[in-house]
Amino acid sequence: MLQALRAQLDLDGRVYFNHGGQGLLPESSLERLIWCYRHWRRCGPFSQQAERLAAEQVQRTREALATQLGVAGSTLSWAESTSHSLNIALWGLDWRPGDGLLVSDCEHPGALAPACRVAERFGLQRQSVALSPAADPLAAVEAALQPNTRLVLLSHVLWNSGRVLPVDQMTRLCRERGVLVLWDGAQGAGVLPLDYSQVDLYASTCHKWWMGPAGTGFLYVSERVRPRLQPTYVGWRSAERYWPDPVWYPDGRAFEVATIPVELLAALEQSLALHAQAGSADLRARAIRDLAGQLWERLKADPQVELLAEQPPEAGLVCWRPKRALTFADLRSRVQWLEARGIFVRAIPQPLCLRASVHYFNTTGEIAALLEALERLD
Amino acid sequence: MLQALRAQLDLDGRVYFNHGGQGLLPESSLERLIWCYRHWRRCGPFSQQAERLAAEQVQRTREALATQLGVAGSTLSWAESTSHSLNIALWGLDWRPGDGLLVSDCEHPGALAPACRVAERFGLQRQSVALSPAADPLAAVEAALQPNTRLVLLSHVLWNSGRVLPVDQMTRLCRERGVLVLWDGAQGAGVLPLDYSQVDLYASTCHKWWMGPAGTGFLYVSERVRPRLQPTYVGWRSAERYWPDPVWYPDGRAFEVATIPVELLAALEQSLALHAQAGSADLRARAIRDLAGQLWERLKADPQVELLAEQPPEAGLVCWRPKRALTFADLRSRVQWLEARGIFVRAIPQPLCLRASVHYFNTTGEIAALLEALERLD
Repeated sequence: MLQALRAQLDLDGRVYFNHGGQGLLPESSLERLIWCYRHWRRCGPFSQQAERLAAEQVQRTREALATQLGVAGSTLSWAESTSHSLNIALWGLDWRPGDGLLVSDCEHPGALAPACRVAERFGLQRQSVALSPAADPLAAVEAALQPNTRLVLLSHVLWNSGRVLPVDQMTRLCRERGVLVLWDGAQGAGVLPLDYSQVDLYASTCHKWWMGPAGTGFLYVSERVRPRLQPTYVGWRSAERYWPDPVWYPDGRAFEVATIPVELLAALEQSLALHAQAGSADLRARAIRDLAGQLWERLKADPQVELLAEQPPEAGLVCWRPKRALTFADLRSRVQWLEARGIFVRAIPQPLCLRASVHYFNTTGEIAALLEALERLD
Repeated sequence: MLQALRAQLDLDGRVYFNHGGQGLLPESSLERLIWCYRHWRRCGPFSQQAERLAAEQVQRTREALATQLGVAGSTLSWAESTSHSLNIALWGLDWRPGDGLLVSDCEHPGALAPACRVAERFGLQRQSVALSPAADPLAAVEAALQPNTRLVLLSHVLWNSGRVLPVDQMTRLCRERGVLVLWDGAQGAGVLPLDYSQVDLYASTCHKWWMGPAGTGFLYVSERVRPRLQPTYVGWRSAERYWPDPVWYPDGRAFEVATIPVELLAALEQSLALHAQAGSADLRARAIRDLAGQLWERLKADPQVELLAEQPPEAGLVCWRPKRALTFADLRSRVQWLEARGIFVRAIPQPLCLRASVHYFNTTGEIAALLEALERLD
């Protein structure tokens, strides 16, 4: 089964550990996309038939993703990217000047940017919580919460260390204090199964671990929190009627705007089907942890390497710093050297490290190839 | 030249008059898109090389569009659609409660929706101006402007009648009163050349008349108005640096968010090149007016038809009401009947009408085929 999937990725000997950056689009997903472009052009592209086909595709892929996540389709909105999705959530709350917005010090620029902008626009108090490797994230967040804190923005899986935050307990902690948690799920969705009854706002993308095309992100909003979230960017896709005044959809569609490239969602539907065929979400997560754990163990044994996580990985990211790499430029040149040899990892500026994203269909042989190349590099 | 373009549209005898809804994506644009998916996957898809290729493509297509429009690339932001682009402009102004937002009664739901939402959120006074066919739009807008009006939202070409509003004079009228004009250019860009020195905010899309893929829209912001527009949805693409605080780009990039499907922009670059090869913007606009004028004249001679514009079309849209069609459902069924015979027009609910979008490569023979089918229909 995994061989059949790998055969669709045009690997040709390349060793790809960058699904946390962007996933490899399977050939059959790409073929589905191409088919839609040609077929819908032939049916229109603007026609009653094409309109029906596109509307059906949008809903069908929504349901397929909902099934994978274990949620109702009505709780999902399509977005362009994780950042776009975070923006929908951040701008949608009824902020009052002086409200507190708590953000960890490990968030991605794509999350920091909208958090800063919303704070600027609505006169919010920006609050920060340090998630140093040693800190207990629950205790750290609990200590950082202020009486005026209304929202905590945290990554499910920290992009720059691979650490997994405890979603259930964090939600419980914050719900007890009337504080919402907005999860940046860029490195979580498609990797870790999640009990969404313990989640209120989860922003992610399908072009990384789910291996859909770039441009396919989503926002999950719980039914509990949905009435508190207002749409910001809107268009004809957001409202069930427009005259005399728009009536926004009560479900996730309210946060969608207008024309979108539905062909991308057709490709995503196929990628989701391939994952479902490959095994259950639990099985896939276990394979990811096993393989990432192998890499982590081997790096731990290397005295020239400093690992960023003290525990074996619970998700797909493994981050380490070669002790002789002192600058980001140095790390970038190592990445380039590896890239020239068909091995793909990435460099991260803060904290300085290299990052490998291990997917369930990576192999022990690929991990060995990466380690061997790293050895030659040092 | 036009034959070569038409050969790329998979027409196969079909008569397509719906470029105002969605354009036909030329086969060579689609092939370019497919090539990018495969090539960038082979180069990464997440790698230093692929990152460079994608960044170059984003800028190259931006410059190609800027050249077509006759503006500087720095004034353009990529958006997903016209509506998305209108949202960027509407949310980006520093609204105060009680400010007036003037919208014509002929705007598209994709423009009405964000106008209503922004008014709701910031406590604006919604003001309306009727653009009935008989009214002089300049006099009507002048009479509708209130002392508190800060922005007028108008279509360059009215989607539901085909009427063209006088951009230069409207801008002059409003600038004299310190009022901004935000143009919905969905039916203007790719049809009519425009002197952008007389424009401050212009939102449009490239998937209609420019014949790029769905998902490629843009916002033009004049350098004069740029300092007054703040970014709303933001991400890593918006800022030139992030630490300690984001510094937004001074140009159009500030309004872009994060990961976008750059493959679509590669396809658009090819579509833009095909238009440039087909003739100058003036020549193309004249061909559109000539052909649309032929259709308008023939419909005018038909006593069973009521035209929505009293003057020959200045752009690509021709709207008419068959006197025996009394409901939207009736119009939809006519559109369906035509669609089954390979002829594509659309129905519009308000005012009730059929609409043909005539592009420069449509033919006199296609107009005759449409008229003949309409005759059989009645």
